Amino acid sequence: MKLATVAIAGRVTWGLVEADLFYDVGVALREFYADLKAAISAGLAGVAEARIGAAATPLTELTWLPVLPNPDKILCIGLNYEMHRQETGRTVVDNPTVFTRFANSQTGHLAPIIRPKVSTELDYEGELAVIIGKSGRYISRDDAMSHVAGYSCYNDGSIRDFQRHTHQFAPGKNFPETGAFGPWMMTPDELGDLSDLSIQTRLNGQVVQEARFSQMIFDIPRQIEYCSSFTRLEPGDVIVSGTPGGVGAKRTPPLWMKPGDIVEVEVENLAVLRNPIVDEVR
Amino acid sequence: MKLATVAIAGRVTWGLVEADLFYDVGVALREFYADLKAAISAGLAGVAEARIGAAATPLTELTWLPVLPNPDKILCIGLNYEMHRQETGRTVVDNPTVFTRFANSQTGHLAPIIRPKVSTELDYEGELAVIIGKSGRYISRDDAMSHVAGYSCYNDGSIRDFQRHTHQFAPGKNFPETGAFGPWMMTPDELGDLSDLSIQTRLNGQVVQEARFSQMIFDIPRQIEYCSSFTRLEPGDVIVSGTPGGVGAKRTPPLWMKPGDIVEVEVENLAVLRNPIVDEVR
Repeated sequence: MKLATVAIAGRVTWGLVEADLFYDVGVALREFYADLKAAISAGLAGVAEARIGAAATPLTELTWLPVLPNPDKILCIGLNYEMHRQETGRTVVDNPTVFTRFANSQTGHLAPIIRPKVSTELDYEGELAVIIGKSGRYISRDDAMSHVAGYSCYNDGSIRDFQRHTHQFAPGKNFPETGAFGPWMMTPDELGDLSDLSIQTRLNGQVVQEARFSQMIFDIPRQIEYCSSFTRLEPGDVIVSGTPGGVGAKRTPPLWMKPGDIVEVEVENLAVLRNPIVDEVR
Repeated sequence: MKLATVAIAGRVTWGLVEADLFYDVGVALREFYADLKAAISAGLAGVAEARIGAAATPLTELTWLPVLPNPDKILCIGLNYEMHRQETGRTVVDNPTVFTRFANSQTGHLAPIIRPKVSTELDYEGELAVIIGKSGRYISRDDAMSHVAGYSCYNDGSIRDFQRHTHQFAPGKNFPETGAFGPWMMTPDELGDLSDLSIQTRLNGQVVQEARFSQMIFDIPRQIEYCSSFTRLEPGDVIVSGTPGGVGAKRTPPLWMKPGDIVEVEVENLAVLRNPIVDEVR
């Protein structure tokens, strides 16, 4: 299944994506689930069945919202590909690097990523997002994948000068409308084995980042194991699993995203997440 | 006004604290506000008036919950007193250090702070919490205090080995039931001028941290100005404004909190936040 949160003529809903159509399951199941997060909490019970009879809308008529506009937690894994670790000059560590985003820093597929008026150092970070389906603490590696509800594309858009104001990344990772999340989440049964799939980030059509998930330093089970050692994971929580080498900040000269640019994050067999860059209204 | 979120015989509500009594304003205004955060969003309209006729409960019969159990954002300021900066060996920086807590890491007054089974390095950090009352982005220093709804005591309980796994603090700052927040928030008109007030942390009655707010490196207006430069602040957001020198991790030998200990954070004229330390059930 592919699931998305969207607006249709200004009305927010969620539902299933199949081929060129969106099926408004959110309306069909509105007595049961307030939103996609609530449906995930219930193991997506009844969702596939609700497609029959649900109103269909062409994808071209949707406004895409973040797959989950309201996760309780967005846990971001830093420095999780060797080339990116090396380009940042960071030392090898035994545990994943974890920082966080707030839900209000997100944006949807085809919606703008906003370059704020206080910085020109807007950088891309193409990543795989892992959406938690089942709550848990102290989840073991072996059990980790049973806690996954699905996967999506994420662009962990970063304001590099604010990220480097101090040693803590939070300010550079939380600007409004910089974290692109979409277009949809795909359930694990449909995506299949992740390890050999590739991720690619393109800026104006040029490939700027590329890797396979098998190249992660800490794989998805380890990320879930570690994050659940210090916090209780809940349905709808998102783990953004790290970005490959090639970020704009580490190029000579630096490659910043600017108004008019188009940035894309493609996860093989899953989707292409596309966003234009727009300046904040001053 | 002093405002708190509590449970009475298992029922969660919020209301006013006066002398030895809690007034259940949450029930009286339930048609208007879902919780204290909603009342703050409305500028606490009607709250003072609702005290008349509200059911009163002795404070001794309450279960105190975090003042706000569900803030959208908890922004923590690190290294904000010179003695603490020096004891950690960090360099002087031009902007506040900001990391984050998730709402599910909190606990209330008199409730346990939990020492997790994966670490013995449980440390205290007594702090002043600033609760945002009015949303805003790019808030100026001069306008900052008009965005404050109130103040409270916070113990930013930290698991130091997890905090130092990498350069990012999030894992050590998000263990369940480690962030104590309470007992109540006090509105600015009642607390008066902050700058000369003192904060003190006591472990089993011994003073372990002590400072005046005038000693902050970045004062409250600067914290609000900086945080609102990278995120939109919303009503109910919490800024935890930094801890003085004297943390347990930097003592020789280190002073860790352990089961049976009692930790207190006292903000002059505001309140004493008191928590026992309890081991996680294994």
